[in-house]
Amino acid sequence: MTLDSGAEARQAPAPKPSGKLHHHIGSFEPELGGYLPEVVLAYETWGELDHAGENAVLIVHALTGDSHAAGDPSADYKRGGWWDPMIGPGRTIDTDNDFVICSNVLGGCSGSTGPASTNPETGRPYGIGFPIITIRDMVRAQKRLLDDLGVKRLKLVIGGSIGGQQALEWAVEFPGFVERAAPVAATGALGPQGIAMSEIGRRAIMADPDWQDGDYYGTGRTPGAGLAIARMAGMVTYQSAAGQWERFGRRSAKRPALHTEIGGRFEVESYLHYQGRELAGRFDANSYLYLSRAMDLYDVAAGYDSLDEAYSRIEADTLFTGISSDWLFPAVEVRAAAEAARTAGANARYVEIESNNGHDAFLKDWAKLRGAVGPFLGDQEENG
Amino acid sequence: MTLDSGAEARQAPAPKPSGKLHHHIGSFEPELGGYLPEVVLAYETWGELDHAGENAVLIVHALTGDSHAAGDPSADYKRGGWWDPMIGPGRTIDTDNDFVICSNVLGGCSGSTGPASTNPETGRPYGIGFPIITIRDMVRAQKRLLDDLGVKRLKLVIGGSIGGQQALEWAVEFPGFVERAAPVAATGALGPQGIAMSEIGRRAIMADPDWQDGDYYGTGRTPGAGLAIARMAGMVTYQSAAGQWERFGRRSAKRPALHTEIGGRFEVESYLHYQGRELAGRFDANSYLYLSRAMDLYDVAAGYDSLDEAYSRIEADTLFTGISSDWLFPAVEVRAAAEAARTAGANARYVEIESNNGHDAFLKDWAKLRGAVGPFLGDQEENG
Repeated sequence: MTLDSGAEARQAPAPKPSGKLHHHIGSFEPELGGYLPEVVLAYETWGELDHAGENAVLIVHALTGDSHAAGDPSADYKRGGWWDPMIGPGRTIDTDNDFVICSNVLGGCSGSTGPASTNPETGRPYGIGFPIITIRDMVRAQKRLLDDLGVKRLKLVIGGSIGGQQALEWAVEFPGFVERAAPVAATGALGPQGIAMSEIGRRAIMADPDWQDGDYYGTGRTPGAGLAIARMAGMVTYQSAAGQWERFGRRSAKRPALHTEIGGRFEVESYLHYQGRELAGRFDANSYLYLSRAMDLYDVAAGYDSLDEAYSRIEADTLFTGISSDWLFPAVEVRAAAEAARTAGANARYVEIESNNGHDAFLKDWAKLRGAVGPFLGDQEENG
Repeated sequence: MTLDSGAEARQAPAPKPSGKLHHHIGSFEPELGGYLPEVVLAYETWGELDHAGENAVLIVHALTGDSHAAGDPSADYKRGGWWDPMIGPGRTIDTDNDFVICSNVLGGCSGSTGPASTNPETGRPYGIGFPIITIRDMVRAQKRLLDDLGVKRLKLVIGGSIGGQQALEWAVEFPGFVERAAPVAATGALGPQGIAMSEIGRRAIMADPDWQDGDYYGTGRTPGAGLAIARMAGMVTYQSAAGQWERFGRRSAKRPALHTEIGGRFEVESYLHYQGRELAGRFDANSYLYLSRAMDLYDVAAGYDSLDEAYSRIEADTLFTGISSDWLFPAVEVRAAAEAARTAGANARYVEIESNNGHDAFLKDWAKLRGAVGPFLGDQEENG
């Protein structure tokens, strides 16, 4: 290809994004029990699948994310796609060449089947009658979607946080299907401090009388106060002490108060109140319970005789990305996961992003993220 | 004194502890406004005050502590005094020589005037009509108690966490009165991450419908569920990630469930549930709001032109003790406080306890605590 023809290719209109689509994958048996007679996954795509079905890139979202990974700001998505700076024509994940897919996870509340969905057997929402969903279940459901779309092989699966857990699980569960896996800010098993923070959030939701044992749909009341507190607890795990000193320090809040005060408000409190309210306005509290639980429960070694056996299954080139100030999945634990995978024989590397943005760096530090992930993709191209 | 007479002195019966006493210090004007017409402080003493009134040691308790710093396990105090291994005949704080005092803080709920106390002007509990209490208020109230007891000078003031904030404030607020100050696991100002966790707890309490805008006394309902969640959030800040891996890992819980489960229980969750329930059974939720807020609000520089001016007031020999794995008051911040005090001209030193027990090390790692604090007291004896 000459430079000219390359320039022409870039000037050609990029394939249109799909917008949000819904796909029925049929019935589903979660690994820990229960049965879902009918599962729908909401998803979006960018770019075009090649004839061999081998240019697909799967983007996997985090706890409160959705299928809208890429796109400019719009009426429906005021901030645009949640990973837009990483995805597009000529970007790290290049929709000129790649068929990019992102689906809302099983158990979610942004179009895929979850606790707020109607149970066809009762005609009412599942609530906490929804079965426990694991990271492996999410991956297995995604696999059914990809099969139906004609994807034969994943060029790359990438995501952060519980998206990173899924990226890792993809490499373990479907080794022949995954060429490259890039878990970001995730390990094979969350530590007890992270579990503790998850549970503080769940307790806040379940202690909210509007939760009504999970059966709040249609009552006109939702456990927004509890969910907002859960979000506050989550946000603490997504940021770092140093980052909060930089961003908030001990400054007083300027925004209007949302809650009763005992001795004024610090900026960091006000920020968390607003973050809590924002999530409570857009997310289903039961979904929060199930998805946060999936994060806690994930153990890459589950179902295998050892951690080594699990990691030895990986055939994909795997890049673990840690974040220096990550509280939820500490960099030292991400590095250890990479080492365990390598010890087990996987082609696994580790790269670390230096940032004060904590866990959330994978949604903020775009240049650093490109710097970490780009060479992994580029190197592979050269070698492949 | 010969060795023989020393031996005789040790064999003499130790002065009896006082048991819990209550002292009226009169009316009180909190620094941020409001008025308390009548303030009582609950306190206990061990040892005897000398004629000069100069052998007093003030022990300052942490957020949910009380005046019972020393003593064997008993019916009222199943675990004994909360700092008992540090206090007693021949111990680091030696009741053979020292007159040891510990008082429940102003705003507390263990005998001292706080939000649960009756407002003499209304005949009803203060609730959130109680004025905002600061660390400085706590110290000023303690000073009135000590004056009334005939204490002329504090040989030592020592405490951890908000007790450490008070120990520091004592040295700044009453420089001529304090010979030695030993703040443990505390700085001159809590960071935003700590404030955030405090606020998560307060939100959980205030979102509990049984809180009833703080006016729950006598209703037969108390915001125990909210307070339990606040305690869970507090406990996370008192422990370290490494310590939780050691203690809990990802083991499943064996104790009976206290709450609705979404996918089983980890040991760390069950531990936190029980800790939450324990506190809810013994502590006033409004007190928790006020005392946690005092911790957040404390700024040693408040009321002075600069941090340097505040620290320059210190005349006491001051020992800042940091804990390597402290999440709430990170060791690096405690060290920086010591350096700022030294820069301002104070005779301030820093010592660090290496421990995985996090913030709580000051209530657990007795040998290390003795190793850190003992030389500070011993050196002074030799120099004094």
